[in-house]
Formats: sequence, structure tokens, C-alpha cells
Amino acid sequence: MMEVGQMYKHAFSFTQAQVEEFAKVSGDSNPLHLDADYASTTVFKKPIIHGFLGGSVFSKILGTLFPGEGTIYLKQNMEFLRPMYVDTPYEAILEVKEIEKEKNKAIVQTNIVDPASQKIVVKGEATVLNKEKIR
Amino acid sequence: MMEVGQMYKHAFSFTQAQVEEFAKVSGDSNPLHLDADYASTTVFKKPIIHGFLGGSVFSKILGTLFPGEGTIYLKQNMEFLRPMYVDTPYEAILEVKEIEKEKNKAIVQTNIVDPASQKIVVKGEATVLNKEKIR
Repeated sequence: MMEVGQMYKHAFSFTQAQVEEFAKVSGDSNPLHLDADYASTTVFKKPIIHGFLGGSVFSKILGTLFPGEGTIYLKQNMEFLRPMYVDTPYEAILEVKEIEKEKNKAIVQTNIVDPASQKIVVKGEATVLNKEKIR
Repeated sequence: MMEVGQMYKHAFSFTQAQVEEFAKVSGDSNPLHLDADYASTTVFKKPIIHGFLGGSVFSKILGTLFPGEGTIYLKQNMEFLRPMYVDTPYEAILEVKEIEKEKNKAIVQTNIVDPASQKIVVKGEATVLNKEKIR
């Protein structure tokens, strides 16, 4: 059962092949994510991961791990503070901020941290509903 | 060039094959999206599209169509007000709310509407930067 203050950490990374698959399924073929020559002309110097692909780790965690099966997403806010790159280890750090037991809802802080620099790369907050696991 | 008040509309839909591809690339294998038998036991009655897949239409539009190439995502907020289903026509409706010319930034309202009911299914707001197209 989720409790206020509870934390969940999940290490992950993405490959360029996954970025290409995400571009295909979403239709977001922005060359910033796909074209190394184009990206080399930008402030990022190399292709960056789509913000929505990076943030999808929150969907994975909330829907399959913490609290897991049965989770229904109500809200997600994201600030993309720093670029995310492929083949780079990241850590998603979730912390339960509020629980409304009678509504089976939780507000969860959802951040992605670069373990190398200890900096937050994506800062966010989710609201989820789970009748079995939030009560 | 983007202007305050400017709107952009984009019709789209997703197939179950795309939902399965998104589950694979994101790792979100919540059965609510993939398993018709499981989904039939929920309030939704049939599988729903991942909120992050539905919302990825904003990434596609902002990164490739409006304003397009060169867009860098700074923020995205989303409220998932109603379920989204496969093989169902939806319309993304974007409206420019604020422009900070000197910072090349725009705040854009990002909604998804079900044309059949005229109801908003996803309500959101994005902040983006584009040095060429927002100035």
C-alpha cells in the first residue's frame, strides 16, 4: 500500500534504436532526436531523447511497478530541465507527496536524475488512481 | 512565426499495434492498455491508450508541424480527463497563449478533443523554445 513519504527508485537508460521506435510510434521525427549531423549544430551537440520518451518511464513505473497494475493516470506535469542522451544511465526517483484514501488517489513527485552529476534532468508530478493499491 | 491567439488543429488516431509498440518502447505493459479481457473488468470496458502515447501527439505537433523543426520542449502539463480508445478519431487543438520573443519561448494550450462528443479528453499546456520560429 502506498504511504506518504514512500520513495521508489528505478535505474534506466534508452538506446538510439528506442528513440527511433518512439519517433515512429509518436510521429515526432524532429531531427534533434534522430539526426546526429543536425544535432551537432545545436546547443546539445548530439541527439537528445524526446522529452515524452524520457518521461514515459513514469508511466512504466506507475503502471507496472509502483503502485503497479490497475493504475489510472489522472495528471502528469513535466519540466525538461536538462537534455537526456542515449546510452546514459538515469535514475527515476518517485516520492509520494499526498494520499486521498477515500478517492484512491495519490500525488507523486516524479523526477529523473543524472547519477553522474546528481542533477535533476526532468522534474515532475503525477496524480494517479488505483482502487486496489491506494486506499 | 507564432503569434498569440494562433490555433493549430491536427486530426489523428492510434491503432492497437501502435499501443503495443508504445508499451514495448516505454516498458509500460499495464494490462489496462494491452489485455482486452482484463480491461473488460474495469470501468473502461475495453483497452485504453496510454496517456503518454495520446499526449505524444503534442510532441509530434510542436516538434514537426507547429512551430516545427528546432523546437525544444521546456514543459508539458497534462490532465487525462477521459479515456482514449484505439481506432477512434481525435483532434489535437493547440492555441498560443503567451510569447516571450526575447527568450524565443511560447506557452501553448494543448488539448485533445473527441470530435464525436466535443469533449476534452486531455487538457494541457506546453512551454517550448524555438530560436528560428518564435521571435
